[in-house]
Amino acid sequence: MIEPRRDTKWWGWGDPATLPELDDEALGVLRERVGDLQPWPLSAADPGEFVMANPQPLPPKLTEAVGPERIFTSLEDRLRHASGRGYVDLARMRGGKLEGGPDAVVLPADVAQLRAVLDVCAEEGIAVVPFGGGTSVVGGVEPLRGPHARLISLDLAGLRTVEVDRRSLTACLGAGLRGPEAEQALGREGVTLGHFPQSFEYATIGGFAATRSAGQASSGYGRFDAVVSSVRLVAPKGDLETLETPHTAAGPALRELIVGSEGVLGVIPDVTVRVRPVPPQKRYEAWMAESFEAGAEIVRGLAQGPGLPEIIRVSDEEETEGSLAVSGPRGFTGKAFDRYLGVRKRRGGALMIVGYEGEEESVSRRRALTVRGLRAGGAAYLGQSAGSSWEHGRYNGPYLRDTLMGMGAMVETLETSHTWTRLGELHAAVAGAIRDSLASGGTPGLVWCHLSHAYADGASLYFTFISRRREGAELEQWAEVKRAASEAIVASGGTITHHHAVGRDHVPYMEAEVGKTGLDVLRAVKNELDPAGIMNPGKLLP
Amino acid sequence: MIEPRRDTKWWGWGDPATLPELDDEALGVLRERVGDLQPWPLSAADPGEFVMANPQPLPPKLTEAVGPERIFTSLEDRLRHASGRGYVDLARMRGGKLEGGPDAVVLPADVAQLRAVLDVCAEEGIAVVPFGGGTSVVGGVEPLRGPHARLISLDLAGLRTVEVDRRSLTACLGAGLRGPEAEQALGREGVTLGHFPQSFEYATIGGFAATRSAGQASSGYGRFDAVVSSVRLVAPKGDLETLETPHTAAGPALRELIVGSEGVLGVIPDVTVRVRPVPPQKRYEAWMAESFEAGAEIVRGLAQGPGLPEIIRVSDEEETEGSLAVSGPRGFTGKAFDRYLGVRKRRGGALMIVGYEGEEESVSRRRALTVRGLRAGGAAYLGQSAGSSWEHGRYNGPYLRDTLMGMGAMVETLETSHTWTRLGELHAAVAGAIRDSLASGGTPGLVWCHLSHAYADGASLYFTFISRRREGAELEQWAEVKRAASEAIVASGGTITHHHAVGRDHVPYMEAEVGKTGLDVLRAVKNELDPAGIMNPGKLLP
Repeated sequence: MIEPRRDTKWWGWGDPATLPELDDEALGVLRERVGDLQPWPLSAADPGEFVMANPQPLPPKLTEAVGPERIFTSLEDRLRHASGRGYVDLARMRGGKLEGGPDAVVLPADVAQLRAVLDVCAEEGIAVVPFGGGTSVVGGVEPLRGPHARLISLDLAGLRTVEVDRRSLTACLGAGLRGPEAEQALGREGVTLGHFPQSFEYATIGGFAATRSAGQASSGYGRFDAVVSSVRLVAPKGDLETLETPHTAAGPALRELIVGSEGVLGVIPDVTVRVRPVPPQKRYEAWMAESFEAGAEIVRGLAQGPGLPEIIRVSDEEETEGSLAVSGPRGFTGKAFDRYLGVRKRRGGALMIVGYEGEEESVSRRRALTVRGLRAGGAAYLGQSAGSSWEHGRYNGPYLRDTLMGMGAMVETLETSHTWTRLGELHAAVAGAIRDSLASGGTPGLVWCHLSHAYADGASLYFTFISRRREGAELEQWAEVKRAASEAIVASGGTITHHHAVGRDHVPYMEAEVGKTGLDVLRAVKNELDPAGIMNPGKLLP
Repeated sequence: MIEPRRDTKWWGWGDPATLPELDDEALGVLRERVGDLQPWPLSAADPGEFVMANPQPLPPKLTEAVGPERIFTSLEDRLRHASGRGYVDLARMRGGKLEGGPDAVVLPADVAQLRAVLDVCAEEGIAVVPFGGGTSVVGGVEPLRGPHARLISLDLAGLRTVEVDRRSLTACLGAGLRGPEAEQALGREGVTLGHFPQSFEYATIGGFAATRSAGQASSGYGRFDAVVSSVRLVAPKGDLETLETPHTAAGPALRELIVGSEGVLGVIPDVTVRVRPVPPQKRYEAWMAESFEAGAEIVRGLAQGPGLPEIIRVSDEEETEGSLAVSGPRGFTGKAFDRYLGVRKRRGGALMIVGYEGEEESVSRRRALTVRGLRAGGAAYLGQSAGSSWEHGRYNGPYLRDTLMGMGAMVETLETSHTWTRLGELHAAVAGAIRDSLASGGTPGLVWCHLSHAYADGASLYFTFISRRREGAELEQWAEVKRAASEAIVASGGTITHHHAVGRDHVPYMEAEVGKTGLDVLRAVKNELDPAGIMNPGKLLP
């Protein structure tokens, strides 16, 4: 049976059966810090009650391109392809109506059909939104029509080839493979991609490439863009394909134009990535640094010295306190708990998660070097059970967001990066801007941050904020805080996004990011590859 | 005193006082393998005798842009900026005349003057060839005028700023810094770039960036493009600058459009790179693998497992035999020499150079892992003296080429890369094509290859060939062999260049490399940044 995926909550994140609840302690912290919440129920009980404009009719040529069995126009399918999974998207889903949605969902079987669809759409002036897992948190799959009257969602779930070169340790993976599908197929060949973003369970390979995704283990395995060996782009104007060689000096890297192109230049049908042998050993631990600054210094020392473990993250004092209230001290047992308390008694510490994956000998060797850095930096060991507890909950964030939103909270995340020299400044500026914006809007909240992707020259910062929603003005409230945070990032010289990509939400900050000439160059590339301007209008480029 | 550099041989490589001679053993091998050579004297004894067209007059506005003291029109300065340092270039220098040369050498003092020069040239339609060290071996600084009547060589020697961020381990380096200048300035801050191509002594930072250079230690430190953190481009249309953050997901990577742009989009005035602490220990060793294939397998195992040392290279059997005849067994002493002989008695072995740089403990730890891989792969240890001997001679190749050319030889190198799966096929195809082309031209020769840059998914191959020159038809002879080798590379799916760049010589193979759509995209970018087409005509893009 050919059909789009319908296995997730249409109004929220992931498995419909997963609806976590907060315990009393967590509820207490929440109430204390954000105030009393008013429930935020779904306005539509099921997709049938949802309000969305009727679809525009599409030309018969489009039906001929893929066959009628590959075009879907039901309200549910259109709704499932009408937004990503950012706070703004879910807030609108709760409202029960959307201004726009795709006129149809088109599901090509292969690259030939994909090419045929783009040809028809370019000729007819139909906007095309490439759709992988639909997990964008920055409006990357928002069905914006630009100057076009009609729009399709181009669902890539049919493109799921897997081809492994065990000798070169590379794999060519179809764009439509979800994270677990790719890992299962690779696992049968004894290899792994090692790419585990929080969206792993539902996000796709094509999306990882189109957005320069980073995963929780990217400090060790490398960001997705760093593991791409070669890539293809099917663009309205023609096909682009880079050679599969480990490196080349033949001019500007077209691979790096395709990666991160977010569907505005064309469609990535598959991508060849470097893989690694499946690690026989995985070991996750928790540590407590004396402060966020001390934890960041430990990470810097490792990144500039012996190297980083696969996973290393440091929560700031706020996030440490908050996340321990929600998820810990469960997970800490015996002596680890005592040590935790000991550290906590001294002052607000910074929780660190450290994970090693590899051959037993390699894990042991690299752990010894890492532990030396941790201890020299004043961190205290909290044990493996707390690390495993993090691992078991590593994909839980978006489920918890559904719960919090249902209770009436605004929950959003954003991320940036900077050099080590300016990371502290960036942290203070962005956390301060979010906190001030929330407070001045009358909804003070929790503002958490962690450092989760590190490099020799700097690191990323990932912020989470939670507050009461401003009832009836949820989107305005969000826009105010987002603008305050984004302006603080720009003023500090950080990047507007380290791994969530640009999508719709970061478009206003692209000129600050790449400059006027940079935008002109990107527009020239777009005009060349997509002269009719049908590809993902309103994203990436102002 | 402001003036262009005039400290190298005008007709050859580097220090005029360095003119190495071959000893009897090397001469014997050469005579046996390539036949008797007829001396190839310089036709012009000094620049004054060289024949080059008179320069076209340039507009006063150009003089105003930099001041008259920064414009040079002497025959010597024009000659020194009239070609790179490939075999073709040096063969033409020996001939004593050139068809073209720049009308003037312009030496801007800073980025403001650079901008002013580009503005004048764009307005007046004057072709601009950015000039760093002038060491291109692929015609990258060839003064081709395209549709323009006038051409200047834009010498970047005035741009030599150095700014180190010790905490983030980055450095912003001016384009005109030669390798040793950059290393000396960095060394004063306790850091190193670790970029040591064979052209290190004379090539510049801007050239490294513009050509995606690789150095002898790039397996450890990373290729130049891999250490670029951010970069600027001064283009006729405007300035482009990427943010200095360790990573971003804000769209296609403009940094990767600038790096490798070979002067056809604009001028790179400076580049921010990741640096490392100066290694307190350096250790170089020689090993003998049972065969080139066995040596390559050892490197693959290390690249895919515990990691690579800073330097690792494997010569194929031909290069091993030839280079030992020229430079060894001097350097091997005592037991190492016996081991060498023992290996050699079994069959033709493959010489490996392995180098470690870093903290003593790091060198020792990584050496232990590397040695385990070497021994498991059947390699025999030849000792440190042979490794040091390689290190002392690491920049000698181009000097030796002058000697060989003077004796009457054609000496050329070329390089490519491929996945581990297809590396053997590429090696056989390219070596065979060169050998056949030389033989069918009546000048059989030496064809050597080494693997010198390795990655988890593949490696580069570097070929050297030496034969009798075809007197009076040196350029045609070279073109035949180069074409044969290039076609073999393309047919095997390798890249036309792993680190020498495209320049003039590889332009015919760019469509095979990036496809028609890829060329269209690069041309669109060029048209956007350089609408008058003044930047480095005839390079990179067909």
